[in-house]
Amino acid sequence: MSVSISRLLLAGAFSLAVAVPATAQTTTKIDSLAIRKIYDEALLRGQSYENLRELCTKVGPRLSGSPQAEQAVQWGKVAMEKLGLDRVYLQEVMVPHWVRGAKEKAEIKPAKGKGLNLAVCALGGSVGTGGKLKAQLVEVKSMAELAALPAEKVKGKIVFFNRPMNATYVQTGRAYGEAGDQRRIGASEAAKRGAVGALVRSLSLAHDDLPHTGTMRYEDNVAKVPAAAVSTNGADQLSQLLKVDPDLTVELEMACQTLPDVKSYNVVGEIKGSKYPAEIITVGGHLDSWDLAQGAHDDGTGCVQSMEVLRLLKATGLRPERTVRAVLFMNEENGARGGMKYAELAKAAKEQHVAAMESDGGGFTPRGFNIEAEPAMVKKMQQWQPLFAPYGSSEFSPGHGGTDIGPLKDQVKALIGYDCDDQRYFDIHHTAADTFDKVNRRELELGGASMAALIYMISKYGL
Amino acid sequence: MSVSISRLLLAGAFSLAVAVPATAQTTTKIDSLAIRKIYDEALLRGQSYENLRELCTKVGPRLSGSPQAEQAVQWGKVAMEKLGLDRVYLQEVMVPHWVRGAKEKAEIKPAKGKGLNLAVCALGGSVGTGGKLKAQLVEVKSMAELAALPAEKVKGKIVFFNRPMNATYVQTGRAYGEAGDQRRIGASEAAKRGAVGALVRSLSLAHDDLPHTGTMRYEDNVAKVPAAAVSTNGADQLSQLLKVDPDLTVELEMACQTLPDVKSYNVVGEIKGSKYPAEIITVGGHLDSWDLAQGAHDDGTGCVQSMEVLRLLKATGLRPERTVRAVLFMNEENGARGGMKYAELAKAAKEQHVAAMESDGGGFTPRGFNIEAEPAMVKKMQQWQPLFAPYGSSEFSPGHGGTDIGPLKDQVKALIGYDCDDQRYFDIHHTAADTFDKVNRRELELGGASMAALIYMISKYGL
Repeated sequence: MSVSISRLLLAGAFSLAVAVPATAQTTTKIDSLAIRKIYDEALLRGQSYENLRELCTKVGPRLSGSPQAEQAVQWGKVAMEKLGLDRVYLQEVMVPHWVRGAKEKAEIKPAKGKGLNLAVCALGGSVGTGGKLKAQLVEVKSMAELAALPAEKVKGKIVFFNRPMNATYVQTGRAYGEAGDQRRIGASEAAKRGAVGALVRSLSLAHDDLPHTGTMRYEDNVAKVPAAAVSTNGADQLSQLLKVDPDLTVELEMACQTLPDVKSYNVVGEIKGSKYPAEIITVGGHLDSWDLAQGAHDDGTGCVQSMEVLRLLKATGLRPERTVRAVLFMNEENGARGGMKYAELAKAAKEQHVAAMESDGGGFTPRGFNIEAEPAMVKKMQQWQPLFAPYGSSEFSPGHGGTDIGPLKDQVKALIGYDCDDQRYFDIHHTAADTFDKVNRRELELGGASMAALIYMISKYGL
Repeated sequence: MSVSISRLLLAGAFSLAVAVPATAQTTTKIDSLAIRKIYDEALLRGQSYENLRELCTKVGPRLSGSPQAEQAVQWGKVAMEKLGLDRVYLQEVMVPHWVRGAKEKAEIKPAKGKGLNLAVCALGGSVGTGGKLKAQLVEVKSMAELAALPAEKVKGKIVFFNRPMNATYVQTGRAYGEAGDQRRIGASEAAKRGAVGALVRSLSLAHDDLPHTGTMRYEDNVAKVPAAAVSTNGADQLSQLLKVDPDLTVELEMACQTLPDVKSYNVVGEIKGSKYPAEIITVGGHLDSWDLAQGAHDDGTGCVQSMEVLRLLKATGLRPERTVRAVLFMNEENGARGGMKYAELAKAAKEQHVAAMESDGGGFTPRGFNIEAEPAMVKKMQQWQPLFAPYGSSEFSPGHGGTDIGPLKDQVKALIGYDCDDQRYFDIHHTAADTFDKVNRRELELGGASMAALIYMISKYGL
């Protein structure tokens, strides 16, 4: 692009004008100026990016129960205290403590010829192999296909779940959700048929060599067999090799194990509402991350954006009329205990919650919000879309709020999921590539601004 | 993000349902299915990404007049021929031939103490320094500030243009356009006041050490003084140093020069319209790039997307009723001769052009299209927005078409600029970082699909 576009671009430049009923003009003008103030502060002096740099590079990987998760709690508490909030505190919660262990490898062993290394990673929660596990494979695309196989085809084998994510969905989260059964319940379904292990195609739309971890669960009273993820390229290669050599074996060695639960914390900071302090709006992300990388997009970005919401409201002098609470939830990845504890304590204390927002889809350019509420409530919030259009974040659609705020559902009028461009998200999600350098400063700060803008509106008008 | 969101996400999943007058239901259904077909082909079998890999890695940097630009022409011709089009040909055009030369360096020399290297790059079209150019600096933020300075403050000095892009604009292209005068005319404005050179803050919203090149023009009958870009970090550092040591000098050495014009080509490929072959729709990007990197986002992506539009129409069997022509324009970066030649030949041949589309804003996730046309025409095209909403590319707004299609303005009903997420674009634009690895496969293929979808609609209904 050359620079000759300058004048023409000015013609197409965004304006603050918004289409609303004349009666609402004045309020709208005030609100659109307030929202402009929030965006200006974020784009000129946003602190999300530098906070994320600290969390990613000074703390790094922080799986629940790990020493780094504990460091992350302390980091979050100090970062919140620096904001000069009305209240900062920790909520104790017991979390699972799974460790990957030192050894993690797999080798493809053809009937003849030398073995090939296969890049794998244990799925979170998997048992180890206890030495080497060597077995033939049976490839399936679905649970139904597995169920239809004769018992002798599965017994003693490793079930290779190889259904790709549906690339034709524009919403990658939908493709992730639909393919997720393989990772989540594959191992137990395989074990029920007599299999000794499960290999799962990574949940990714990229064609590369990165194995993607993620949580899996064992069904009660079913043998626990080891489960590992294989990269998308590795899965394609393995599938090809099986066509020419159906008897090839895979030798899997994983030292992962689950240790006793550990005490950990949600980190909470709040600004008291100026008019309705008893009415609470929650905004949060999760502080824990998988152990393979820095947990930048998943979900460092959601944490720093949630804290930034509070900073933006303070820095712009837009004191919320209702209480706004930022929560760094512990253990979203492999248990969601932090989210459940937060809702449990809210109910026990008879707190009055209005809405809850979660950012856990990456720190990319905002598109809007997914609203989990009654249709009438969604419609009500959609009246605010014109205020967000100048910033490209006006897609207010019915959708999923988030895993950590989910348990609050019966206590709020709306669960709100921050929605951003998700085309790149699952390329790095749960892999060694989820690092700080993948985050763009402006995209991240724009996200925090759009979250703060919607929370400003809810804090002013309620729901 | 954990996988437990699967079912809930399905609730919010996109659907093909579109809101349109009942009378139009049938046509709309056919069109929405056709567009779905285009997206499916792009997302499952798109070739833009592999074509771009070839252009970036086998040809690489390809500034007008360079041997690599000639290789790019041959590459484009072969790539078009592989598509099995009705016609592939070259359009001869003479282009400028500027070369950076081997030597390019700058050093900050404080009154006392040792010198500091300053990362710079010559602006395209600049004269060289002819040995070393050493002078004091005068920092300004605008042309007005320069004009207001007393002559003796400028005479014999290097003018340091240091106005940052406006970070508060959500549309980065607007900020780029407004700051562009410094790069475009800074040198001549400085020379008019007796300056011996110009240093220009890079046109970027990132805080980093990459100098951004780009074209500049000398005014007739004004002394030609060397002009170089300095990185944003470098500009901030230099500004700080000047505050404590206003007399520091900069020593600049650049071996760049302009050689005689060279013969080059636009590459053109077309599919004849099945019903109205005489009516032409053009879609293009520019084949030339700056010399510092691979020209991936600027504008390899626009080239491969334009070719992909033709491939998608063929692969889906959606033969266009009007002729669709993909053009790889030469010399957008420093002369726009290719675009002017294309319009000139179209007029000379009395061709009947309906519309022209350009992709030159990067290969990021599509948002929609900027339409440069009469308001009534913009409204007419906006009726198609519901068909694009399921794909997140339904922002049809008045705006700039593009530099290469601009000269066609008086021959078409609409100039259309492909509009995508531009938050990252100017971070790498015209720098050594504009490389293939910055492009995401799905984002790129989605862009080609949205371009093909709009061209399918125009080819079917006209404008």
